[in-house]
Amino acid sequence: MTIKKIAVLTSGGDAPGMNAAIRAVVLAAHHYALPTIGFFSGYNGLIEGSSSALTPASVNGIIHRGGTILKSARCPAMLTEQGLESAATTLKKEQIDALIVIGGDGSFNGLLALNKYWSGAVIGIPGTIDNDIDGTDFTIGFSTAVNTGIEAIDKIRDTAEAFERIFIVEVMGRRSGHITFNVGIASAAEQILSFENFSQTDEQDKLSHLAKEIKQAQQNRHASYIIVIAENLWPGGATQLAMQLKQTANIDCTACILGYIQRGGSPVAKDRILATKMGVAAVQALIAGKSNVMIGERNNQLLTVPLDVAVQHKEKVSESLVSAQENILALTAQ
Amino acid sequence: MTIKKIAVLTSGGDAPGMNAAIRAVVLAAHHYALPTIGFFSGYNGLIEGSSSALTPASVNGIIHRGGTILKSARCPAMLTEQGLESAATTLKKEQIDALIVIGGDGSFNGLLALNKYWSGAVIGIPGTIDNDIDGTDFTIGFSTAVNTGIEAIDKIRDTAEAFERIFIVEVMGRRSGHITFNVGIASAAEQILSFENFSQTDEQDKLSHLAKEIKQAQQNRHASYIIVIAENLWPGGATQLAMQLKQTANIDCTACILGYIQRGGSPVAKDRILATKMGVAAVQALIAGKSNVMIGERNNQLLTVPLDVAVQHKEKVSESLVSAQENILALTAQ
Amino acid sequence: MTIKKIAVLTSGGDAPGMNAAIRAVVLAAHHYALPTIGFFSGYNGLIEGSSSALTPASVNGIIHRGGTILKSARCPAMLTEQGLESAATTLKKEQIDALIVIGGDGSFNGLLALNKYWSGAVIGIPGTIDNDIDGTDFTIGFSTAVNTGIEAIDKIRDTAEAFERIFIVEVMGRRSGHITFNVGIASAAEQILSFENFSQTDEQDKLSHLAKEIKQAQQNRHASYIIVIAENLWPGGATQLAMQLKQTANIDCTACILGYIQRGGSPVAKDRILATKMGVAAVQALIAGKSNVMIGERNNQLLTVPLDVAVQHKEKVSESLVSAQENILALTAQ
Amino acid sequence: MTIKKIAVLTSGGDAPGMNAAIRAVVLAAHHYALPTIGFFSGYNGLIEGSSSALTPASVNGIIHRGGTILKSARCPAMLTEQGLESAATTLKKEQIDALIVIGGDGSFNGLLALNKYWSGAVIGIPGTIDNDIDGTDFTIGFSTAVNTGIEAIDKIRDTAEAFERIFIVEVMGRRSGHITFNVGIASAAEQILSFENFSQTDEQDKLSHLAKEIKQAQQNRHASYIIVIAENLWPGGATQLAMQLKQTANIDCTACILGYIQRGGSPVAKDRILATKMGVAAVQALIAGKSNVMIGERNNQLLTVPLDVAVQHKEKVSESLVSAQENILALTAQ
Repeated sequence: MTIKKIAVLTSGGDAPGMNAAIRAVVLAAHHYALPTIGFFSGYNGLIEGSSSALTPASVNGIIHRGGTILKSARCPAMLTEQGLESAATTLKKEQIDALIVIGGDGSFNGLLALNKYWSGAVIGIPGTIDNDIDGTDFTIGFSTAVNTGIEAIDKIRDTAEAFERIFIVEVMGRRSGHITFNVGIASAAEQILSFENFSQTDEQDKLSHLAKEIKQAQQNRHASYIIVIAENLWPGGATQLAMQLKQTANIDCTACILGYIQRGGSPVAKDRILATKMGVAAVQALIAGKSNVMIGERNNQLLTVPLDVAVQHKEKVSESLVSAQENILALTAQ
Repeated sequence: MTIKKIAVLTSGGDAPGMNAAIRAVVLAAHHYALPTIGFFSGYNGLIEGSSSALTPASVNGIIHRGGTILKSARCPAMLTEQGLESAATTLKKEQIDALIVIGGDGSFNGLLALNKYWSGAVIGIPGTIDNDIDGTDFTIGFSTAVNTGIEAIDKIRDTAEAFERIFIVEVMGRRSGHITFNVGIASAAEQILSFENFSQTDEQDKLSHLAKEIKQAQQNRHASYIIVIAENLWPGGATQLAMQLKQTANIDCTACILGYIQRGGSPVAKDRILATKMGVAAVQALIAGKSNVMIGERNNQLLTVPLDVAVQHKEKVSESLVSAQENILALTAQ
Repeated sequence: MTIKKIAVLTSGGDAPGMNAAIRAVVLAAHHYALPTIGFFSGYNGLIEGSSSALTPASVNGIIHRGGTILKSARCPAMLTEQGLESAATTLKKEQIDALIVIGGDGSFNGLLALNKYWSGAVIGIPGTIDNDIDGTDFTIGFSTAVNTGIEAIDKIRDTAEAFERIFIVEVMGRRSGHITFNVGIASAAEQILSFENFSQTDEQDKLSHLAKEIKQAQQNRHASYIIVIAENLWPGGATQLAMQLKQTANIDCTACILGYIQRGGSPVAKDRILATKMGVAAVQALIAGKSNVMIGERNNQLLTVPLDVAVQHKEKVSESLVSAQENILALTAQ
Repeated sequence: MTIKKIAVLTSGGDAPGMNAAIRAVVLAAHHYALPTIGFFSGYNGLIEGSSSALTPASVNGIIHRGGTILKSARCPAMLTEQGLESAATTLKKEQIDALIVIGGDGSFNGLLALNKYWSGAVIGIPGTIDNDIDGTDFTIGFSTAVNTGIEAIDKIRDTAEAFERIFIVEVMGRRSGHITFNVGIASAAEQILSFENFSQTDEQDKLSHLAKEIKQAQQNRHASYIIVIAENLWPGGATQLAMQLKQTANIDCTACILGYIQRGGSPVAKDRILATKMGVAAVQALIAGKSNVMIGERNNQLLTVPLDVAVQHKEKVSESLVSAQENILALTAQ
């Protein structure tokens, strides 16, 4: 099938660099003389027929902006037959030949489901701060989120150091520890608690072990102590952990939840470049006749990954990172 | 009394620019050939005799660093006769003629109490992010905290706008609304809730009024909606308010507590310059024979304020700010 | 005359916060049920009739952006009768009753000249990074430019310190030293060279005096040495000064010209708040029947200043800043 | 040979992340019970015997600081037999078994030369913003320099867009285009001029070609136009190119030389993590008996590269980056 008209949308949690990806798709499509339209608010725009034509002028001056000019949303309707049918109807009505979706694995499942109702080509671009998509070393937005995290902890460190205080800082990442480990190492955290190195099989054991380590560390030195913890790891999160450390071991900790500041902000260079390369590659893949693939980057090389493979597993945190952390942290605590 | 040796310490919550103030005190004292020592961890250093000589070399390269090289602490012992006596003993033993304390009103009360046990000169420099010290338009650290706040909300705005979502962002300030109003206006918040414009006499009334305003605003436009709220204003804070808006009016809000990132970070120019001018002025005031005063800045002019006056009231938020906000916000909600 | 329709434009060098001022004008006008249009590219838009209606939606999400959504320009045609006539014709054709111009003194002279050809009300809002407008303590953009300057010098300091090297950093400010002094003090510069403290009556004397100070300072300590110099002060600027110091005194310096990065960037809180208050005040002044005035801020209070007074002199650098610098710098060099 | 004592120094141009590397070396050595000393000011510290013991406490709170706590320098004396002999003498006197040098290829040549006079183990860690070391995908400092570059150009873009003006921005990189290409793509530059895509065989041809492209682009749209150019590419640099475009084609451009701000600043997460992993790996390589190698990272895996191989060639800019840029830029100009 020859591609004559392209559509693009952003879906799921927004991530810095999504605008850079939209821009690259539009510029590359324009380069190959393909008109592009953008649907608003994720799959909702597809279902409700809310869209706008995108030209090089529409994407001027957006490479450095956080968020997404196409807005985003979760879209439960895409899990229903009716929703999928409506989406397909819109695509046919607008005479779209190919749909590019920038989002996470939930968004890619939407693309796979759409296949049953629509015969156009579909391409996924991994855009999520969590970096948990199998088939790519990096997702768009991850590097910015890590940098936002370390800038926040650098500020917390000032106070922590002034008061020789213990902080528990909770960072995002859904169910994977990419942000946790990268932020933890880059901010010289004294402890990193994540899914990869901290199973919850015995919560009470964990707690007493952690309390023991903190006490040892604080005995030997006068300094701050920062624990970076993954969200969804400890029941009740950082706030609950701080309370338990106080109750069971009389350790005073301050809990900080970084929250939504990690999603926004101007993307760092890495995310802008990755998004630009992936956006161009998505259009070129379409022209080359590909469909049902995600654009990924492995070992600094772009490649395509079947969408159904990409959604099957979570990308794991590099073992070298997990072990480097152990070597470094073992002694910061001394 | 001729001043021959000066001591300096930082006390209470740390604030960006405290290092710039320490530097200015040390350089100005050196300029007038006065040796300076710094006590560590606030009044605790005084009580425990923990100190270090400070030279121009000690304060090289610190003007841009958050936190305080002298560390800080709250010090309950300074509320006891025994604590005050120990502090006085240390000052006599070290042959200190004048003590400069950089901190908030609690710290200045410590200075006033010390008068009964020690005859040296005492000077306060207002260092707190809360800007709540009477007698000065600005305290050291306030401007940086406001900028940290708006940078955080600029990031939150990206997500809020992408999802047309409502956020409730809680900012610091203890019991005054300086940070809340300045952050709110500078981040184009749709609502500012603070002590100055939002009394809690009838919580239920307030809640339904707020819910009504949010619903009206969201009916007329598709955009984000950000509420900036002062800490300690609403029982249970932003988290509780979000829950109540959901329960009573079925409004979905996301609560964000900025927390300790507001205390740290490299000070903005305003705080570095204010701290530098105040540090120099403190030393010059000592040489001019002054004592029991705080250095303040009113209408861009430095002045001295009796310490007992400075601690009596809280500096109020400028009315022009409160009313400007009303004019702007009335329509952002339209 | 009753005001029924307002126009706004930005003129001269752009300054961070201009967008915040545009937003405030549009929101306040909307609040008073006045429609607003914006002219593009300064007075050129007036002469060429290039404009667009501005609504609350047009100014959503711009408070934190550098530059100006209305674009700016210098406009030599406004110095000609023909240009002024064209501008007046456009204003009449568009049925504008009042024109608000955000810019510097050159832009205000355009407003004064326009009076001869057009009877509408005119208001100036001081928007320039140079802070050189008489009648206001601060102009919109100044605080951001100072912060951009210190962030740049903080980075240069890293290298300077690593190599114990001497840097000459040239900052903007046209013919006044506001940026120079504020950046110099806030970045702990070892030397500040500006119009206020460094006349060029005897260039050779100055050079040898400076060389002597540098050599003395470097003899006594191992550290970096940063000279902040005002643009347009020394013939040939920082580059020429560095060459002369090498030739006449064998001192190795590296020249850095900060340049246009000082004009852009997201405005700091101070500029956003100042711009917001001034924009609201401009509309309120129009409604109160005022014309030919500039909105200013003195001692934290908004006021109006006759435009012809505002353009007569340059706002001077505060003497306390000039003298504080002498006290501090004298000893940093020791 | 068993390693009992380690020395570390930073050499050549400083790069953000050098402190993180020093910290990792010291912490890892401490982990393996090896004492570490640091030499000051590059090889000069070796020649002059200027050093200090480094403990975990010495490297607390430095991971986020630009510059290098060990200072750096170029050291011509290391090219002489006498200099090398002095260096070797110091190492023997201090009973050093292994020397880790953080720097660029010039610094590694110093290590290779030292082999003739000293039998200890030597390891190189690639620390330079230029990213021009063969054998590693990334050098420490490169990612931060790229981000500093795009933040500067984001600011310049504000003014450029407000005035629809053409800027020529010169970035660092010595003789390679890594910074140029990455900054250019990430800042959406309309032109990237670097060694890889712009040979100088016929300067006049290049000039007229460039002028033609600029004129075409500006005819079709009203927007800014930013050219990112590598230092040392065009005779006379950005300033000269701007003058030539004016003289030969009457095109008004503003030249900006980013200069030394690119060397400093707090390192981004990528550089902190890379430095941490490389510092740990360097100590582990020594323990494993390795010498005369550089620690590198290829495809996200750490490895060792013979030092004489690392210094032989320059790491090339990835072809995918050069070609992606062509696809994107071709149309931004349309």
